[in-house]
Amino acid sequence: MTTAPAPETFDGSGPGPAEIAAAHARIAPRIHRTPVLTSASLDALAGARLYFKCENLQKTGSFKIRGAANAIFSLREAEAAQGIITHSSGNHGAAVACAARWRGVPAWIVMPRNAPAVKCRAVEAYGGKITFCEPRVSARAETAARLQRETGAVLIHPYDDDRIIAGQATAAKELLEEIPDLDAVLAPVSGGGLLSGTALGAKGLRAAVRVFGCEPERADDASRSLASGTLQGLEQSDTIADGLRAALAPRTFAILRRNVDGILLVSEEEIIAATRTVWERMKIVIEPSSAVAVAPLLKPGGLAALGLAARGDGAAPKIGIILSGGNVDLASLPF
Amino acid sequence: MTTAPAPETFDGSGPGPAEIAAAHARIAPRIHRTPVLTSASLDALAGARLYFKCENLQKTGSFKIRGAANAIFSLREAEAAQGIITHSSGNHGAAVACAARWRGVPAWIVMPRNAPAVKCRAVEAYGGKITFCEPRVSARAETAARLQRETGAVLIHPYDDDRIIAGQATAAKELLEEIPDLDAVLAPVSGGGLLSGTALGAKGLRAAVRVFGCEPERADDASRSLASGTLQGLEQSDTIADGLRAALAPRTFAILRRNVDGILLVSEEEIIAATRTVWERMKIVIEPSSAVAVAPLLKPGGLAALGLAARGDGAAPKIGIILSGGNVDLASLPF
Repeated sequence: MTTAPAPETFDGSGPGPAEIAAAHARIAPRIHRTPVLTSASLDALAGARLYFKCENLQKTGSFKIRGAANAIFSLREAEAAQGIITHSSGNHGAAVACAARWRGVPAWIVMPRNAPAVKCRAVEAYGGKITFCEPRVSARAETAARLQRETGAVLIHPYDDDRIIAGQATAAKELLEEIPDLDAVLAPVSGGGLLSGTALGAKGLRAAVRVFGCEPERADDASRSLASGTLQGLEQSDTIADGLRAALAPRTFAILRRNVDGILLVSEEEIIAATRTVWERMKIVIEPSSAVAVAPLLKPGGLAALGLAARGDGAAPKIGIILSGGNVDLASLPF
Repeated sequence: MTTAPAPETFDGSGPGPAEIAAAHARIAPRIHRTPVLTSASLDALAGARLYFKCENLQKTGSFKIRGAANAIFSLREAEAAQGIITHSSGNHGAAVACAARWRGVPAWIVMPRNAPAVKCRAVEAYGGKITFCEPRVSARAETAARLQRETGAVLIHPYDDDRIIAGQATAAKELLEEIPDLDAVLAPVSGGGLLSGTALGAKGLRAAVRVFGCEPERADDASRSLASGTLQGLEQSDTIADGLRAALAPRTFAILRRNVDGILLVSEEEIIAATRTVWERMKIVIEPSSAVAVAPLLKPGGLAALGLAARGDGAAPKIGIILSGGNVDLASLPF
């Protein structure tokens, strides 16, 4: 992979429908086509018809395997043979380790020291080699660059990469294929790979669908960036949504500016309550980072904040939610 | 419903394919067609290809809505109008309350005093009226009979009823429709409604499939009954599998004798470990009663205990597992 170009070179178009379709064809035989679940009790709480794309039930426990598998299986044989490096708060690391094992090449994963133990164990279970770094966004890239110089392996950035974005887009593509008349789709945003892919994947199938990013108040760089029109930083965050502690890159910022309809912020308390509500009512394990995309709809006025036009059929709006992952440490639950 | 006839009147044939198909047609518009999930890590632990029928993701959080909806929507209008009574350790009670609400009639639910709080709240949330009784199997039926005299409502027994058994059979029917070449199906056994239905539903579509009941050592009446050839009692049990504290009825015993290939026993420790393994690896919430049907395959020699013939294709056996429910109290987890 080449060094990231300067911001002004991104026009925000990102990977197109053909690249997303190619990614889907490449990864579909290796991953789960995850179910889309519904819940009458969540519908009642939200005042909408909700369609949950369950990437928590995906291989490696998160959507990250989509992008990782697409990137790693896109590599030429000689490139892949040197091995793969990445940096990750956890789920992307496990996904890269898993996809590298599928491809039969080594993987080195840079993780922050405060990553949950369960995510570290997952990386190791897939045969990934962990190098810990300080829990600052900048430290991750520095450590990965050093490792890359030492090993000659290919760096697969967790989100600043069109192959990753095209892979993540396949979750929304599957969701829209199954529920074609969604009014809106919500996904969490951190580095912006999932949200970029969700916007491109969803709008590629239905131009009228509105796409919203959902972000913790304590890691609100995407909200600030889109509000100001300038890429804002996020040096460190202690949000319980441990998968959302990274910041947008110029590439994803450009895609979000052009393709996303808004960012919804939620508090730590709202994240924890939404996590518990989904576990109790839907009987699925989601991580707090996933609950960030549910929480906006569970608070008073949540649906109104989306500003959706009334449906022609007069029924409640149909909203898709990408449940991004389910990797939690059962020994330290937040409730 | 008439009083249960004497044991010798049951030949063990139970509801046939036509009754099961009619039940399915009756309830399918009202319930979820639950997903069948797979897990590479569980497959590796078991040495088999496992197909999990996720009734924990079913409406009301368990398979019980299948039988309850079939029974309640089978009633003539004049019968249903008097309301419904049942006794239940929890999930059947919630299912009856829910199906009665769908039908627009009242429901009285007799529950043991030691039923989990989360199951009591579920009954109340569906508008069911709870009457508590002593936590003995005999006390449930006595209290229900008294209530029936007082209200004139119809008693829907949780398992000693062909309409209930035909409804529960639809889960295995859906599983076999999706995975037609299963070698075996495992389901938990308590009163025997689910296991009877599983055997009839599965073998109705594939005569060669072997069906096993799974039971806590601490509530082993089905194991003792089938081993001795005589219906054995179970007055009280403290197994953590709180949905499995009931005992077989003459009707279900006769069906199991004729249609089930064996009963597999598991310890409390094995139940707790299997519960946790499924939560961690599959990212779904199952109750300990469901883990009883997973635990036999996670212990050494578990697969061998099924005595399956080698597959013609030489591959690992394909085993279906009915995950019966996901109603747990998150405030008092066993791990």
